[in-house]
Amino acid sequence: MLTNNPGNSPSRIDQQLSFIGQIDQLKQVERKAKPVGLERRENSAEHSWHVLVAAMVLHEHANEEVDLPRVLKMLAIHDIVEIDAGDTFHFHKAAKEDLSIKENLAAERLFGILPTEQAAQYLALWREFEARETPEARFAAAIDRLMPMLLNFMNKGGSWIEYGLSAPEVLSATEYISNGSQTVWDVVKELVRQSVEAGFMEATPRERSAS
Amino acid sequence: MLTNNPGNSPSRIDQQLSFIGQIDQLKQVERKAKPVGLERRENSAEHSWHVLVAAMVLHEHANEEVDLPRVLKMLAIHDIVEIDAGDTFHFHKAAKEDLSIKENLAAERLFGILPTEQAAQYLALWREFEARETPEARFAAAIDRLMPMLLNFMNKGGSWIEYGLSAPEVLSATEYISNGSQTVWDVVKELVRQSVEAGFMEATPRERSAS
Repeated sequence: MLTNNPGNSPSRIDQQLSFIGQIDQLKQVERKAKPVGLERRENSAEHSWHVLVAAMVLHEHANEEVDLPRVLKMLAIHDIVEIDAGDTFHFHKAAKEDLSIKENLAAERLFGILPTEQAAQYLALWREFEARETPEARFAAAIDRLMPMLLNFMNKGGSWIEYGLSAPEVLSATEYISNGSQTVWDVVKELVRQSVEAGFMEATPRERSAS
Repeated sequence: MLTNNPGNSPSRIDQQLSFIGQIDQLKQVERKAKPVGLERRENSAEHSWHVLVAAMVLHEHANEEVDLPRVLKMLAIHDIVEIDAGDTFHFHKAAKEDLSIKENLAAERLFGILPTEQAAQYLALWREFEARETPEARFAAAIDRLMPMLLNFMNKGGSWIEYGLSAPEVLSATEYISNGSQTVWDVVKELVRQSVEAGFMEATPRERSAS
């Protein structure tokens, strides 16, 4: 405890510092994509920074007017649950139901380190992001999905090649971007078109092309 | 270019995506402190995320009321200049004047990738952070300085031991935290006291103790 406290329970700021200390572990959570030109994989902490700046820069392209501060707060905390639940590859759909249970427990444990009303506020913000039912959550989710696509494009294929993904698979798994920003979705479709042309991504799914 | 453009100049969103792509390099800029329990050094991208969440959590402790969205935007971009100018160890004062020139050039080049009015806005935000003359900048600077102290404390000394730093040196170089948040400064003084007690930091400067 870093404050002098007459009682024995941690003070408000002690709880807050404890949370800040715990979430340092997000720097250890590996994602699939790699930073441009690097051999190591990106971690979820640096991704969280990158997606947040991208949302700041691109928010004028949201389909609906969004409350930018709310988007930024959402993106700042959107991946913290991965400290307990790990990062799940976007293309592994089978794991998603089990994941939702794990991530909810993680959110309750991690945000629960904060003072009660702050914990409730952050938990609500994270659930809003996950549900994608508000303009802010839809836009945040769109930019979150754009980021690995940009990295893979700049890395001349990256995890698309590593996992043998094709344009139809990528487009169908990312189409929800259009719910947050039609403009960003148009960019993504063009990016996929150029990626196929340049050989960064297969044009058709592997099984089909093998038959 | 990821948009179809009738002219030959990049569209607004192309400029924005180019900026987002370029700042990926912040993931390669090494700082002095290490993430808790890791052998590698922290990079400036993950630090930017961590300090931003910390400011979000701790903003109630600012000396003056702060516009939190402004603080968050400031912290999101505060280290981007390091892509060109590198990270400078807080305790190397001699390098500071030269650094200011380098960082200004870096800010102009990097933010200049954005559309004109956005470039001006981000440049102004970065200069506001550097000048520490507004409540938002003073609070952002305080939390920015708190972060490596928390990491070193959790790492049982970290770069304090690596660079042989003592309590008086650390306190005098970080005292400006009190301009942003007296509460955080009280925490930092207690953290230094406990660090000396635990042997994470020397009690007196090296030269003095060697005489």
